[in-house]
Amino acid sequence: MSIFRFFNKQSSAPLARERLQILLAHERATVGGQSDLVAKLREEILAVIAKHVQIDSDKVVVKMDRGENVSTLEVDIEIPLDANVKAA
Amino acid sequence: MSIFRFFNKQSSAPLARERLQILLAHERATVGGQSDLVAKLREEILAVIAKHVQIDSDKVVVKMDRGENVSTLEVDIEIPLDANVKAA
Repeated sequence: MSIFRFFNKQSSAPLARERLQILLAHERATVGGQSDLVAKLREEILAVIAKHVQIDSDKVVVKMDRGENVSTLEVDIEIPLDANVKAA
Repeated sequence: MSIFRFFNKQSSAPLARERLQILLAHERATVGGQSDLVAKLREEILAVIAKHVQIDSDKVVVKMDRGENVSTLEVDIEIPLDANVKAA
C-alpha cells in the first residue's frame, strides 16, 4: 500500500480534520536473533507524538504485522481540529 | 512508493545488515494554520531510535517533502549487524 495513495483517497470528500500516518518497517538480516525492535519503537513514537498533539485514543488505529524477516507497524492518527498542535 | 516494494527489491541479493524505514505523513485540513508537525517529530523520532539501535549517521537517509496539504518524511536507516539492538 502506498502512503500517497492512502491520502489521495480522501481527496473527493475533504474532512475537517487532520491525519497523521506512520509506517515503520524493520527488515531483519538474522531471524529471531534480536528482540522485537518495532514493538519497542511503537510505544515511544506514540509518546513523542502525544507530546505535540492531543491524541484521542479512540482515533488511533495501530496495525502490526510480524513477518519472518520484516516487521511492519502502521499507526493512523486522526487529530481533531480543535486540538491544536502544542507548542514545541 | 510502496513500503513493501522497497523491501522486496532487496530480495534478490540478501545483505548482511538490517534496515529500518519510517514513512510519516501529515495531512493538514487547514493550510498554514499550524506549525510544521512533521519537522517537530523528525528529530524526536530519530532520538527514540538512537536509544535502541546504534545509528551510524552516514547510514541514515532522511527525505522530507512539504506539500501544500500533506507533509511527508521518509527515514531510511541501515543498521550494521555488529551494532546490536541495545537493551530496552
